[in-house]
Order: sequence, then C-alpha cells, then structure tokens
Amino acid sequence: MLPSNRWYLDVVRDAELADYGPVRGTMVIRPYGYAIWEGIQSYLDSRFKELGVQNAYFPQLIPLSFLQKEADHVEGFAPELALVTKGGGKDLEEPLVVRPTSETMVNHMLAQWIQSYRDLPMLLNQWANVHRWELRTRPFIRTLEFLWQEGHTAHATAEEAKAMAQQMVEVYADFAINCAAMPVIPGRKSRIESFAGANVTLTIEAMMGDRRALQAGTSHDLGDNFARAFGTQFLDESGELVHPQQTSWGASTRLIGGIIMTHGDDMGLRLPPRLAPIQVVIVPILKKNTDTEAVLAAADALAEAAKAAGLRAKVDAGTEKTPGFKFSYWEMKGVPVRIEVGPRDVAQGTCVAARRDRPGKEGKQFGIPLEPAGFVASMRQLLDDVHDGLLAEATAFRDANIVDVESYDNLKAAIEAGKWARGRWAGSDEDEKRIKEETTATLRCIPFDQPGGSGPCFLTGADAAEVAIFAKAY
Amino acid sequence: MLPSNRWYLDVVRDAELADYGPVRGTMVIRPYGYAIWEGIQSYLDSRFKELGVQNAYFPQLIPLSFLQKEADHVEGFAPELALVTKGGGKDLEEPLVVRPTSETMVNHMLAQWIQSYRDLPMLLNQWANVHRWELRTRPFIRTLEFLWQEGHTAHATAEEAKAMAQQMVEVYADFAINCAAMPVIPGRKSRIESFAGANVTLTIEAMMGDRRALQAGTSHDLGDNFARAFGTQFLDESGELVHPQQTSWGASTRLIGGIIMTHGDDMGLRLPPRLAPIQVVIVPILKKNTDTEAVLAAADALAEAAKAAGLRAKVDAGTEKTPGFKFSYWEMKGVPVRIEVGPRDVAQGTCVAARRDRPGKEGKQFGIPLEPAGFVASMRQLLDDVHDGLLAEATAFRDANIVDVESYDNLKAAIEAGKWARGRWAGSDEDEKRIKEETTATLRCIPFDQPGGSGPCFLTGADAAEVAIFAKAY
Repeated sequence: MLPSNRWYLDVVRDAELADYGPVRGTMVIRPYGYAIWEGIQSYLDSRFKELGVQNAYFPQLIPLSFLQKEADHVEGFAPELALVTKGGGKDLEEPLVVRPTSETMVNHMLAQWIQSYRDLPMLLNQWANVHRWELRTRPFIRTLEFLWQEGHTAHATAEEAKAMAQQMVEVYADFAINCAAMPVIPGRKSRIESFAGANVTLTIEAMMGDRRALQAGTSHDLGDNFARAFGTQFLDESGELVHPQQTSWGASTRLIGGIIMTHGDDMGLRLPPRLAPIQVVIVPILKKNTDTEAVLAAADALAEAAKAAGLRAKVDAGTEKTPGFKFSYWEMKGVPVRIEVGPRDVAQGTCVAARRDRPGKEGKQFGIPLEPAGFVASMRQLLDDVHDGLLAEATAFRDANIVDVESYDNLKAAIEAGKWARGRWAGSDEDEKRIKEETTATLRCIPFDQPGGSGPCFLTGADAAEVAIFAKAY
Repeated sequence: MLPSNRWYLDVVRDAELADYGPVRGTMVIRPYGYAIWEGIQSYLDSRFKELGVQNAYFPQLIPLSFLQKEADHVEGFAPELALVTKGGGKDLEEPLVVRPTSETMVNHMLAQWIQSYRDLPMLLNQWANVHRWELRTRPFIRTLEFLWQEGHTAHATAEEAKAMAQQMVEVYADFAINCAAMPVIPGRKSRIESFAGANVTLTIEAMMGDRRALQAGTSHDLGDNFARAFGTQFLDESGELVHPQQTSWGASTRLIGGIIMTHGDDMGLRLPPRLAPIQVVIVPILKKNTDTEAVLAAADALAEAAKAAGLRAKVDAGTEKTPGFKFSYWEMKGVPVRIEVGPRDVAQGTCVAARRDRPGKEGKQFGIPLEPAGFVASMRQLLDDVHDGLLAEATAFRDANIVDVESYDNLKAAIEAGKWARGRWAGSDEDEKRIKEETTATLRCIPFDQPGGSGPCFLTGADAAEVAIFAKAY
C-alpha cells in the first residue's frame, strides 16, 4: 500500500490509462482512462445542474492584459503561462494567454451581462482544457495541459457567495467519498496556499497510498476582487451600484491520479465501482471436452442481464489466453468484480464472483445465481460491498497515518515518518513558510471537522482555536 | 424565410445563444446555446459508442514539424494557424500549433500503439476545441475557436476504411434529418473541395433560409497518407509490414448556426424539438379575481408530469410580464410547444397548446388534458408533429430552390436567382475553379442520390455519369 513512483507510471502505462504526448509534460488520455473521466463528468455535471448551474463555453485565448488587471492573480499565474504570439501568419499586437483558468475572461463577459440584481445569482460552469507550464510533471497529477470543469458564479451578497463556495466543496467531498471511495478531508486553505485572487480557498485533501497529500478539488470565495478589477457592477434592490460577490471552483483529471494512488495495490489498479468503466468482467472457463457453447451462452446472458440493468459488464471470451492470465489482466485493470463461469457452474445454475478489493479466497463468493434477476441483485450488492470495502480500507489507512502533534518536534518526526501531522495552529504566514522550508511539508488545510475548544499552537504556543493539517504533497 | 445577416446576429444575441469574445472572431457560447450543443453531443456520442468508437483526449499543442510531414495538410492549414511561441516565461525551441485538427497528433500516437492487425480496427473520437485563424467570422458558423468532435480510425484494409467513412457521413445525415430536422444532402466533395490530406471527403450539405449552402459535417477517407507520413505500420495476418488505412470525421458547433438558419422565422428562433433545451413552456394565465393559485398549481403539475416523463419543460410563472409578452419571448427563443392554462381551463380539466412551427390559430390545439398521462402523451405527439412540420417545411423549401441545369447559362441564372444548381458534371479542377471565380458558387457535393444513366456535362458537354450540386456557401 506504499506505491512507488515506478509503480504509478507502470500502472498508468499497463492499464492503458494514459501515454506521454510529444511535447514535454503533455499527456494523451487513452480510452480506458477517459472513460473514468466520463464517469466523473457525468456525476459532477448532474450535481451541478441539480443546483441550478448552467454550462457555457468561454474562449480559450485571453488577452494578456486581462490577467494583469488582478494583481495577485497575475503574480500567481505569470510563471506558468503559454502565450500565442502569432495567428494567421502574422505577429499579434498583444500576446494571448492560453487559458490557465478563466476568472478574467468570465468577468470580462459578466461585466456586460450583469446589470441588475435580477440577473443574479448567475451560476455558470464550463468543461474545458487548461494549460499551466509546469516544470515537474506527472501523468494526471500535474501536466502542461489538463481537462477540468471550472464553475464561476456571481451573487448579490457576500453571504450568498460564501455559502456557494461551501456548497461546492461539499459537492466535491461527496463525490470523492461516495463515488470515488476517497476519504478526503475537506477544509480551508491557509492564506498563502489559497488561489491567486481569492479571499478564501476551500479544498478537499486526499491521502495517497504513499501517504503524500493530493489537493483533489478547490472552491474559492473570490469576494469582489475580480468584479472590481473588471468593473462588474449591478443595481441592487435599493438602486445602488455595487459589485457582485463571486466564487469559482474546479476539479480536474487529477482526480484520476488520485483514484489510482488511493486504491492501487501490488496487482495494479483497483477502481471504485461507481466509476469503473467495466464494473463486472465475466470470464468463461472453457475446458476441452466440455460444452463450451453452453458456457459461452451463459456468460453472454449474464452480461446482457447486467447491461440491461444499467451495469457496465464485459465478457472476456477469447481462447488465446488462459483463465489465469485473464484474471491477472483484469485485476491489473482494476475491474471491481470478476465472474467465473465454467461447465460445472452452468450445470448447477450458479457462478463464482471474485472481489477485487479482497485478494484470494477471502474475496470469493460461490453460488451466485445465473438467473438474471438474482444475478443482477448479487452484482449490485457486490459492487456496493467493494465500494464500501475500498472506502473503509482507505479511511483506516488515512486515520492510521495522521499523527496529532503538540510540538514542532512532534511534527518533524511525523513528517519524517511519512505521515500527516495535525495540531493546533496559530502561526503566521512566515511561520508556515519556515515549516515548508525546513520539512517540505505544507499546510494542507484547516479541516472543517475541528475538535473545538482551544489550546496552545504546536509551534508558537499561542492560543489556537483550530487545528491544521501539514503533509508532504503532490 | 430569407433571413438576413442582421436577422441572424439579432437572433444569436436576443435568444442569448452566444456573445462576442474579446479577441476578434471568438465567441462565448451562452447557456441556452450550449444546451443545444449538449443535445447534439448526447445524440452523436451515443451513436459513436454504439458503433464501438471510444473517446480519448489528445494534447492540443502540436509541434509545427508534425503538420509539415504531410504536404497537402500543411498547405491547407498553414494560413490559419495560431502558434504558441512562449511557455513558462521562455521562448520555445519549436513553435507549437494550437490544434486546428488532430490527424498529425493522432498519427504520432498510433505509430506507437498499432503493431499488429490484432490492434485494428482502432476507433477513437475526441470532443475538443480547435482554432483556425479565419479572417471573416460569424458566430457559430465560422469562429477562430470552435467546439467539435473529431473521430480518428485506423483499419487493416482500404475497404474497411472506405466503409467507415461512409458509415459516419450517414450518422451525420441521420442526426441532421432525424434530430435537427435539417434535410441535408449527403454526398462526395470534389477533389479541390476535399480535406487537406484526404483521398475522399464525404459531406452533408444543408440549405439555409437564405438559400446559401452550409457544410454541416464531413467524413474523410485518408487512405494511408498520414500513416506514411508518420511511419504508422502493422504486421498483417500474413506477416507483412503495411500501413493502416485511416478515416477522420467531424461535426462542430457550426451545426447550431445551421439550425438557426434552417428553421428561423420572422419571430426568431424555431428549435427542433429533439434538441430544444426547453421543449414545452407552460404559461399560466393569471387573471385578477380568479383562483390564481389553482392555475399555478395546475401549471406546476404539468411541468412535473412532463419532466417525470423525460421531457424538458418549464413554467413561466412571473407576474411582471403579460402573457402576450411571454408568448413572444418564448417564440423568439424557439420553444417548440407552448401551453396556456387559465382559470377556465382548470375548471374544464384541459389546457391549450400552441405549436411554434405554425403561427396563429392554425397551430393551436384545444382540449389537451391536464391529467398527467394524457398530457404527456399529447406533448410527445405534438413534439413529433413539430419535428415533422419543421422537416417538411425545410424539405419543401430546399426542393423548391434546387434548379436542374443543362447549360452554364442555366447555372448562372440559378445562382444569380440565389438558388442551388444541379446538373450533370464532368468538368476538370480548372473548370470548377472557373465557375467559382465567375459565379462565386462552389461545387457543394456530388450527391449519393444520383439519377443514374449518363448525359452531357452542363459545362463541357462531355459524357457525365453523375450530377453535382453548385451553390453559394457559408
């Protein structure tokens, strides 16, 4: 459960999730990886729509001057920009930024669309690609180009914007836990770890199998920072001209990296059932001198029944590979449930299931009915069981690797042991930077879940009402 | 039914389909326009998946040298490229092209992925943004950046690739006719109108309300042109190393422009029911001194019933606007069916429907039941009727505006009258260019639907087995 860098790159390649693009730091998302992304999109998109968020699409090329209008924003993004300087064979008068995020572009448009309180709230989202010219890249986790959704909302009051930002981080946490089986910790970023241009950044932090932290989704309360920079104003109910209060929030293909590193084991990928492109793989056991046609027919009938019930099932009927080879292959690909059906099973009207989250005999279940309704009910239950099993295992792993610290020495020991450190915190920005320099751990979040009361800051001894979590991170 | 340029731009703005971006020639797709795109995506994506096509994602930034590998391809695209020359604050060693299409990038990867005939066919698609630095732009129809899908397939034989290209243009034609109610003409492009790098380009050509032609989707048989350029090879069943045969095919947000210009009328947009973001708008008639609550409750119940049945319905319950204002507003927005329900209707247990495709009394239908099952059945029927009505009207319009020509003078007269000209054709590339220069009409396609036999070419008099269609085009 402590996957190495080599393990990660092997899994990404062997499971055909992604491949390297020709430009340094870019990635091709292959069909099996993209199907996971489609599952993520489908879940999040329907949640957004339930909340009244509408999809739109904004141009990717942003005049450089737009980014310069918000001082913190340009400072944060300037080192990572890709610039288009030529178009249609001519040098452009002003370089165009290849979108690293769209707050500036969105505000340029909102300034035209929002006139009155009646236009608010305006709740928009786009599914898009973004570019950030990173130096150290890693497939899915940090690439020059990645896919994401970015939500952008404008509200009449600061309270509404704050509530929106909170609601969206809860959507991400709900997705992570209930869909990806990732027991993330939602919380607030420190000032220096917040988004460039935000007042407050909320985050979900996930513990990977190597115990490093992964920021897996963020939601920002932007206040009126961008509205001021772009002159976005509206007439409120009392007839006064005021700036709207805004949020933005995003989750990306990085989530796929998080899933790989949260659940993977020695045999390869383990995919959470609700996102697995193939939830159930059916391997017919085709023995010589037996009725192989009856076995194949039974396997096909199971797949049909599963698909008719909305499950994602596949039969691996090829005769060139042995069943043992197929078992290993689909284990490596992380399929949550494997069904084995041979001539004796067909005669008995049953088949055998194997759970990917429990290796060996422990994960085997005999006597699964071939009869369609019974089979489908068993599969639904098993897929829920695998989800629960993965979530419970990752939660136990996470909790076993968070150390409560009461001194800086405690923290250093925890970080050196590869763990997360959680302790009461009242340090300054400078204190936080010092910890980063001395330990390479960063303040991941001030979790929403707090012990209450107060006590001495582990670093400064000052009275601290909150605990913060520090960890090494991707 | 002859919408002007001004009409088009007004509809795009007033119906809130799109807005201009800050960079010349770019467009923001607003939620109402984007929802149409989501409908297009949903239909096409499920068709692709039924055919075994898998989605993937390829990097957007392509080394300029890739495009230069295929001579025709770079010649076709060079004038339209946007180039990234700086990244992360540094000048790049090689400029990167912002994807105008991905044949080169795809082949760079296929050369690594395809080794054996067992890897074929490989059927991929991506939903992505592309950039083409066009001089004359128009929202949806021709913009610097647009959204599309691009399919890329590789096959073991030329026959398979040819069949695939044909199948995909049929998917587009089926979508256009049965989903968008656009009576497109599928056919083959002439050599000089084909895609840069293709052996054969197939197309669907649509007639707009101003009688100009719109190329609404294309499918290319690429032969082994790109495979040769990129060294993509595989061992065939006989052990020989050969190039795969490829196709590519794409449809874009341009389709939205086609829908606007095919169906729009003096009152604004008319959306085909299967793509309309709102299929049924319910306007409660709230009169003073009547039981407005009962009316509102009836309206809400109708919307609930429609939504529960999978229809897209909305109640416009506001009291600030008059019913007449609301009728005009939703007509302008192109909603296919409007329901009116007032106090008398509630008392009678019925409501009134108005079809967007038939103005005035002719399109009104009384006595629609308020009872949920009856209401839903009526709505389904009405939506199908509106689809059929729009398609029949556009088909009649198209057929009334295609002139069969037997001489160049015939063609000139037809084109001058704003119509399409169809005639037997055996001209050369030079002949085709001359017609374009002299009439501004281009050869839109050699339709699949041919009269058979042969006869004299309308231009050269040479024996011609096929007819071709010429028209002015967007």
